[in-house]
Amino acid sequence: MIAPHVVGILGGMGPAAGSDFSRLFVNACEVVLVARGEPVTDQAFPEHWLAQVPLPDRTEALLGEKETPLPGMLKALRQLSALGARSVAVACNTAHAWHEELQARCPDIELLHIVSETTRQLAIEGVTAVGLMATVGTHRLGLYEASLGRAGIRHYVPSAEEQALVMRGIVQGVKGGDLPLARACFEEVAGHLALRHGIKTLVLACTEIPLALQSVPGHPEVRLVNPADTLAKALADRAYSQAGLFG
Amino acid sequence: MIAPHVVGILGGMGPAAGSDFSRLFVNACEVVLVARGEPVTDQAFPEHWLAQVPLPDRTEALLGEKETPLPGMLKALRQLSALGARSVAVACNTAHAWHEELQARCPDIELLHIVSETTRQLAIEGVTAVGLMATVGTHRLGLYEASLGRAGIRHYVPSAEEQALVMRGIVQGVKGGDLPLARACFEEVAGHLALRHGIKTLVLACTEIPLALQSVPGHPEVRLVNPADTLAKALADRAYSQAGLFG
Repeated sequence: MIAPHVVGILGGMGPAAGSDFSRLFVNACEVVLVARGEPVTDQAFPEHWLAQVPLPDRTEALLGEKETPLPGMLKALRQLSALGARSVAVACNTAHAWHEELQARCPDIELLHIVSETTRQLAIEGVTAVGLMATVGTHRLGLYEASLGRAGIRHYVPSAEEQALVMRGIVQGVKGGDLPLARACFEEVAGHLALRHGIKTLVLACTEIPLALQSVPGHPEVRLVNPADTLAKALADRAYSQAGLFG
Repeated sequence: MIAPHVVGILGGMGPAAGSDFSRLFVNACEVVLVARGEPVTDQAFPEHWLAQVPLPDRTEALLGEKETPLPGMLKALRQLSALGARSVAVACNTAHAWHEELQARCPDIELLHIVSETTRQLAIEGVTAVGLMATVGTHRLGLYEASLGRAGIRHYVPSAEEQALVMRGIVQGVKGGDLPLARACFEEVAGHLALRHGIKTLVLACTEIPLALQSVPGHPEVRLVNPADTLAKALADRAYSQAGLFG
């Protein structure tokens, strides 16, 4: 077996989501190894680095309330590149607002895109409509809305009141260390989306949400999609790819 | 609040244990912030880097069957140091066989010690006897046995047959991705230790074991101690320490 590429994870947004992304990546590597019939040993995993860097809040930056996280993200990406990383995943949906600029300024690494990976996966699965839960920043940019639209996938988003609940669950709940509060907020919004739109697929488009929401009570028909998991699988595929830089 | 220090985690031994250590560290930082009355936000966490590096098996190296992981660990430690890490934790008990040499060769970082942190914590709690589950390598070096002995804490270890089960649970179970097998192996050995020695405290002195063992069936009196958790708490304390390098 050819040694897998070194890959990087830009985390810290928040740190719990970064740690969880690392777990998802290790699981995804294990799946690749099993699928290839390779023994699953410590030595069979790709070298990977998780950078958990304190960065300004992405939604507040997009709303013009705080400084931009761009310089901090750029610095960490260059550090990951210097460590040998050829592909990097960013463990935060909202941070993808800066994806294009980051990729342009770090041409020596492939910066995966959580939205395009997720949309591609949904299209492969034949999904035609989804509910979407994300930060205000991610919605404001239309990160998922535009990508899903191009793929012909309808999407339903929370009302303004429900969106406030989503943010409360993310900021005071998961980031603030109060998981029961987060779960209550997310379950209420997810339940409303399921009831109002009859969705069968709900995209948890903020890396904090899956840390507290595991199912939609009263709606067993709703499948939860974690874009971080899709991104982690894409990163594992890149690590084990024997093709060139963007292979 | 003074910005916390940059710290590092040397993982990959195995990668699932490294990811889990990252989670324990984030949890430990949250506890520090809450205890200090600081708001828990992304920006309040210390910058930290998790290096998941493929390294030769530690037990096999100690038994003389495989090359030493020392050069690989040394390289990763120097990379962590170059990233600004002032304190580093190694997320593998057996790897502590090389602690003294690593610390001597990396004098610019403080390399925490999982065994001394764990023994100190057990002594603080007034524990006088423990069961001990670890790799063959960790037992062979007497890493815990010597430290517990100096602290006056009695320890009970598995028989040769039970030790083979422990290794099966670690290598084929957790590392190999078969958690049910790992759990069965660990539960059987833990149950025997509890029954034979009447222990109230069981030290899971391999970072893989706590990933599969959450309790000892039939022995609710046995408390499980995870040295990785103790080490993660020590690393969080170092990160938030405002004292000097070894403060």
